[in-house]
Amino acid sequence: MIGIFDSGVGGMTVARAVEQLLPDYPLLYLGDIARTPYGTKSARTIIDYSVENTKFLVQNGANIIVIACNSASSVATERLRQEFNIPIIEVITPAVEQAISQSRTGRIGIIGTRATIRSCIYEQKIKQKSDKYKVFSKACPLLVSLVEEGWTGKRETKMILRRYLHDLKNQQIDTLVLGCTHYPLLKHLIQDRIGRKVTLIDSSEATARFLKDYLENDEHFPAESDYDPGRNRYFVTDLTETAEHIANKIFGRKIKLLPI
Amino acid sequence: MIGIFDSGVGGMTVARAVEQLLPDYPLLYLGDIARTPYGTKSARTIIDYSVENTKFLVQNGANIIVIACNSASSVATERLRQEFNIPIIEVITPAVEQAISQSRTGRIGIIGTRATIRSCIYEQKIKQKSDKYKVFSKACPLLVSLVEEGWTGKRETKMILRRYLHDLKNQQIDTLVLGCTHYPLLKHLIQDRIGRKVTLIDSSEATARFLKDYLENDEHFPAESDYDPGRNRYFVTDLTETAEHIANKIFGRKIKLLPI
Repeated sequence: MIGIFDSGVGGMTVARAVEQLLPDYPLLYLGDIARTPYGTKSARTIIDYSVENTKFLVQNGANIIVIACNSASSVATERLRQEFNIPIIEVITPAVEQAISQSRTGRIGIIGTRATIRSCIYEQKIKQKSDKYKVFSKACPLLVSLVEEGWTGKRETKMILRRYLHDLKNQQIDTLVLGCTHYPLLKHLIQDRIGRKVTLIDSSEATARFLKDYLENDEHFPAESDYDPGRNRYFVTDLTETAEHIANKIFGRKIKLLPI
Repeated sequence: MIGIFDSGVGGMTVARAVEQLLPDYPLLYLGDIARTPYGTKSARTIIDYSVENTKFLVQNGANIIVIACNSASSVATERLRQEFNIPIIEVITPAVEQAISQSRTGRIGIIGTRATIRSCIYEQKIKQKSDKYKVFSKACPLLVSLVEEGWTGKRETKMILRRYLHDLKNQQIDTLVLGCTHYPLLKHLIQDRIGRKVTLIDSSEATARFLKDYLENDEHFPAESDYDPGRNRYFVTDLTETAEHIANKIFGRKIKLLPI
């Protein structure tokens, strides 16, 4: 069973992409709403929380984990691979591979939370591929709160994006990685601001495709052809109206959140 | 010893006011940065966290507790009074008393987090005093994030305040309660927006005065005339650069945050 966790509901953009691409695989989600957000917190704290989340998913039957949170992927992947003897998929590598395959000029922008940008993980992974890439990063910490408030079309959000994207716009990037699972909900505003010529990389979609390749090439994870994705369970560490609202928005249907 | 807790660093506005008014009393602070913010979370979760924080403060010598967080004061005060056999001071009552004593027209505005406004606690407490008061409330959930990002003078913050305060401005209030311990850091912008004729009630200052009255009328809490406030300890559940930055800004001096 695929286990997916995130600091809150942003990771549901990954879960939705996985449900769409892999409807024949059971899925279990955990959103750590009681301690959200992660991106403003220290690496030590994010690692502790990631270990606890993974334990919960494994205890409930997961045998492959997707870290559907860029902040946790940035700082906790190595630790989870040490502690748990199952495949750990993170959202950074798939996004990096897609960015590299799409960029023509080699000038790649990254936006993310403070924790993700501070970790320099995108830059490291891109530079490992080749020195020819130029990476430009910008932490955009307020975007998570704006998405969680449902302000995905408001004028104030556009103004804040204008400030955050100002420097990247001057760097003539041709590819921009949305390095936070909340950001796909702002995709249109970001595209408007950064310009139509820049390709946006949605780490949620990239991760779902990466997972599909992985599962289809590993006999330990057979598809269940009669599986009904309606049986997938979405757990949360806290139940709030805002979370239910965003979950329904992401999936375009009513999602039952199960508090633990 | 006075024990003060908050979801993060906002409650340091209360701690600072207490240090200034009561320099002869030892003080212990706990900021739950690892799980901040509280105001977007459910009452059940905020109560659980408040009990844990109070246990920590009591174990470290506190014999009177100040809940320096409006969200926790709104939903967790009763539970803390049931569980702990020591005085529990919250930030709502002092602010209500001050608002009532200052309002001439009886039209009082309240701004706060979603948890605080949803609890209707300010409205209940004001109406208990007299039916003649009209209370107008507005949840302003993004303000905490804006303060934590240090955006206390930015144009985007002014625009967001304009949106939040729009309805209250039309209600001809003469008094506005800053019902969140982060908001004193936005006092000037709020005053500019709501107008000079409206009296702002800073719950941090009101609470410090309330505590002073309480301590000076209770022989169980003698002052220590030779006490040095430099010995006060500021604990945090997570240590981040942003938290250190805001703490120093609130106190106007370097504050050593101690991770637990």
